[in-house]
Parts: sequence; C-alpha cells; structure tokens
Amino acid sequence: MNYMKEALREAGSALSKNEIPIGAVIVKNGEIISRSHNMCEEKKNPLLHAEINAISDACRILNSKYLDDCELYVTVEPCPMCATAIGLAKIKRIYVGCEEPKTGALGSVINIEDHMPWHNEVYFGFCEDECKGLIKSFFKDKR
Amino acid sequence: MNYMKEALREAGSALSKNEIPIGAVIVKNGEIISRSHNMCEEKKNPLLHAEINAISDACRILNSKYLDDCELYVTVEPCPMCATAIGLAKIKRIYVGCEEPKTGALGSVINIEDHMPWHNEVYFGFCEDECKGLIKSFFKDKR
Repeated sequence: MNYMKEALREAGSALSKNEIPIGAVIVKNGEIISRSHNMCEEKKNPLLHAEINAISDACRILNSKYLDDCELYVTVEPCPMCATAIGLAKIKRIYVGCEEPKTGALGSVINIEDHMPWHNEVYFGFCEDECKGLIKSFFKDKR
Repeated sequence: MNYMKEALREAGSALSKNEIPIGAVIVKNGEIISRSHNMCEEKKNPLLHAEINAISDACRILNSKYLDDCELYVTVEPCPMCATAIGLAKIKRIYVGCEEPKTGALGSVINIEDHMPWHNEVYFGFCEDECKGLIKSFFKDKR
C-alpha cells in the first residue's frame, strides 16, 4: 500500500475545505492507525496541523503516550512545532513528501533533532511532485 | 493580579497528579482567558503541554485563530513545540518563570524566532525560585 498516496488524499480533503493542503498518516505494522489533515481554519486553532492531529488520534486509539513502533507519512516537511511533537511521541521513522524551504524543521530551515535528545530517521521525496504541486497551487490561488 | 502566581497554581495542580509541574495562563486586557497545566500522563498524549492546552482553550473561548492581543505566562521556558505554537498563535508577549537549560526554545537551547517569521517579546525571571523549585523537586523525587 502506498501510504504517501493516503496522506495525499488527506491533503486533498484539506484543500477542498480551503485549508493549507497537507496530510499525514500514521502506520503501525503496515496498518493505518490514524490519518488527518490541517484543520486550522475549520477549528479556528492554529495548532491543528496534520501531524499534531494524527499523533493525538493515534495516541488515543492505541491508548499510549508513545508511538515508538509507528511510522509517520506527511506530505510536506514539518514545522518546528510538529517536528518536536514527532520527537516527543517517539516516532522514529518519518517519510516526507517534499521539503518546506521556509519553515521546515527536519533539515531545511533548522533540524530540531540537532537540539533535542532524540534521533529520527527521515526520508524525503515520496510523491514529491504531487505534494509540492498541491501546496503551490493553493498559494498561487490565494494571491 | 500576579498572573505568574496563577500559572504556579496550575503547575501545582500538575504536581498533585504526578505530571511534570508546569503551568500556563493566557491573559487579555488584564483578564485570565485560559489556564492549564501539563496533562501528558492523564490523557496519555505527549503533546498536551501547559502552553498547548492554554492556547487551544483560549482560541476556542475567544473563537479566534489568533491571540495577538493576549499575553502568555508560563512557569518554565517552552520547548520548541510550544515556542512554535506561541508564534503560530501570534502571541507577542511571553513571561517565563525560569529557564529550561535542556529543551528551552526561547533562547536556552535554541531560539525558535531566529528561524521563523515572527518576533516575540520574552521576559524571564518571574517567581523564578518557585518555578524552578517545583521542577527540581519533581525530578529529584523521580530518581
């Protein structure tokens, strides 16, 4: 199963609600545990990024404070809030669709793990063109 | 009114539930809008830091995505997740009880605003000894 395609479907749901089109999926043993997208506008809460929602849902579903046996798929490189949230949840492996040159905190603008007591395995470039294309068209339409 | 004392009361509530004793209060025009403390253990969610809870509550109560006319009082220097959350919520003025030398992201380990498109006014050292004492005694008891 292509989990990044599922994250892209979530990003598409965000786009259809005029949210910044980013999606995230959390997988454990090959099974999708949670999936979400940006909900900042809908819920009027600037913290409800796709990764935050997916992590909170997965913790509730698994009844666990830590997700150390899970993987995260996210269409766009996480911001420092989300990169730290991923570390706090002890998610070790992260698959990222495309880089975020202005706010990306897994290496682009900053690498959070250089400053925090954890290490992530991060892999970039899954469905990169589709992930980047969604974001680009969203901001182009906004201008 | 001494808002840091109120944040300290929240930290005390956390301590009584065996949570890391950190509290936060959000104030608008001299009125406390929201108040919270760490709830990571209680809710089995590693993202529920005092600042995150207080920001989410304030956004809901004020029905606003941004808290640009609010101030945050927090007993311990925020981690990168919370420091970014504060910026995303556009909170401009932050009063901090004590520094956090291992994870503090308002200058100690890293300064998030050096990498992100916002500027905070940050003031340290309010009820410093009490804020630091709570944390120290918690981790001493844990060992």
